[in-house]
Amino acid sequence: MDSTDELIKNMLSGNRRALSKIITLMENDSSSHSYIIPRIHNLTGKAHIVGITGPPGSGKSSVVDKLISYYREDGLKVGVIAIDPTSPFTGGAILGDRIRMKKHYTDKEVFIRSMATRGNLGGLSEATENTVKALDAFGKDVIIIETVGAGQIEVDIVKVADTVIVVSVPSMGDSVQTIKAGIMEIGDIFAVNKADIEGVEKCIMEIRMMLELSEKKSDWIPPIIKTFGNREDGAKELYTTINNHYNYLIESGHHEKKRIVRGKIELVNILQNLFIKNLYSAISEKEIEDLALQIARKEKDPYKIIEELMPRLKNVI
Amino acid sequence: MDSTDELIKNMLSGNRRALSKIITLMENDSSSHSYIIPRIHNLTGKAHIVGITGPPGSGKSSVVDKLISYYREDGLKVGVIAIDPTSPFTGGAILGDRIRMKKHYTDKEVFIRSMATRGNLGGLSEATENTVKALDAFGKDVIIIETVGAGQIEVDIVKVADTVIVVSVPSMGDSVQTIKAGIMEIGDIFAVNKADIEGVEKCIMEIRMMLELSEKKSDWIPPIIKTFGNREDGAKELYTTINNHYNYLIESGHHEKKRIVRGKIELVNILQNLFIKNLYSAISEKEIEDLALQIARKEKDPYKIIEELMPRLKNVI
Repeated sequence: MDSTDELIKNMLSGNRRALSKIITLMENDSSSHSYIIPRIHNLTGKAHIVGITGPPGSGKSSVVDKLISYYREDGLKVGVIAIDPTSPFTGGAILGDRIRMKKHYTDKEVFIRSMATRGNLGGLSEATENTVKALDAFGKDVIIIETVGAGQIEVDIVKVADTVIVVSVPSMGDSVQTIKAGIMEIGDIFAVNKADIEGVEKCIMEIRMMLELSEKKSDWIPPIIKTFGNREDGAKELYTTINNHYNYLIESGHHEKKRIVRGKIELVNILQNLFIKNLYSAISEKEIEDLALQIARKEKDPYKIIEELMPRLKNVI
Repeated sequence: MDSTDELIKNMLSGNRRALSKIITLMENDSSSHSYIIPRIHNLTGKAHIVGITGPPGSGKSSVVDKLISYYREDGLKVGVIAIDPTSPFTGGAILGDRIRMKKHYTDKEVFIRSMATRGNLGGLSEATENTVKALDAFGKDVIIIETVGAGQIEVDIVKVADTVIVVSVPSMGDSVQTIKAGIMEIGDIFAVNKADIEGVEKCIMEIRMMLELSEKKSDWIPPIIKTFGNREDGAKELYTTINNHYNYLIESGHHEKKRIVRGKIELVNILQNLFIKNLYSAISEKEIEDLALQIARKEKDPYKIIEELMPRLKNVI
């Protein structure tokens, strides 16, 4: 067994297996974060963090696949974190889409990692954020976070990125509107994928209208780009636009602003997870269950119970 | 201005406007919950809570619309809580689908309320849960919670229901699989809506396969029912099945078990919201921002910062 110190040392000297083990450690044992992160934090902050989100079936993975190729052609080292919905039966991540990136699995300068949404979701944000840090300290120039843009948690995860790409597809009917509601405002670039199918102009018009109505004012007007899975045309334009956005961030000073937002999210996430963890050591699962029974039987209401618990919760954090 | 006590009194004597005001109060002011709930908690627990979830565009609202009609024919009083994604521009809920239920808006025994997912999501769970309690105390026999089954938060919200219906539609391609991942295991009844379009048998087969693979053992085998928007055939069968499930819950003793789970979720939700609220009074937004800047500039890592904050966090709850 490697010690954590040894793993960190090996990871920082470029050992992929050590990197992989560090991530697994952080995924499985949340208490490892407070040991690992202080030892690598000062080596982070160099990578460009790119978030890609969109509804299931929008072809995000094909787009990511193509982007990886361009980064590699430019000699950049790439890390990918793919947030997958968890299979309810195996408990593992549903890896379907990942298969589309498989040609990069043999490239030593590309590191692809799936993380599953099962379990503590606050914990997932923390684990994702710290996996970004590990990849950053490891020396990746670009870190891509890919998530299904369906729920608030996914939005929170992708919010830590420097550049956020929202992928849509034409003719998804009213679902586009609805799914986009939460993520429209965090998009720096919009990609309309599968742009060779019917309804693409309507889709672009809708996005443009929503952007124009937006009260979010900025020097950066989010471009809308047509893409076609991993075909050259749209993908190349998307790639150029991502780099333009990064330059804009650096030159305008917005880069640091985004990093401050990220720091805030980090702090609150860690505190919240700590709270939940400590809560369960202050009050046993069994006791919570007994109290829940009292609520169910209407012997007591939850606010009364919490009032009574208060003295014991004083030291929960 | 009505006092809260007066509002509660009027609500409990059947005043719809007072009910409405109580819900608004709880939505806008989280500190009102601990005043209101203890005063109505012992009047709750009588209603059958039905959760309906499914992807956007699956036609949940049409199904709900039909169910409301059947409940009314049987003389039951109905409350509906529709959880809507928030429009990024108006800040209000996107109400598109609600229009399909509009014929019930004039029925005095049907109370329909939209709640938006904007803002504090933990807060939304708490507000939804307590709106259920208000409707219950008000005398509703059935309370339907309708949500887009997209993210974990929505799943958490619907988990408090006695009977959970998962709505699917055929031919949604791989998206069905993915969206369903998180919600398959909480479904008591599966409705395949728009069952007159192609792909319905494949969709049913897939659900059946996933259910057979499931390790969740129970006496209740989730039925899969074909529905057709608000057409009579499927909807009536769905209605009967919902009632069968309720009877099963009561007879098997699972009803109380579900209510205990609900009590647990309630307790943890309230505590977590309390924690976040108190955190921001212990440490100002401004200070958190300064600390975030230190993280961004790599002057300190977040775990070090939290270690230093600890003494001040001792009394956060």
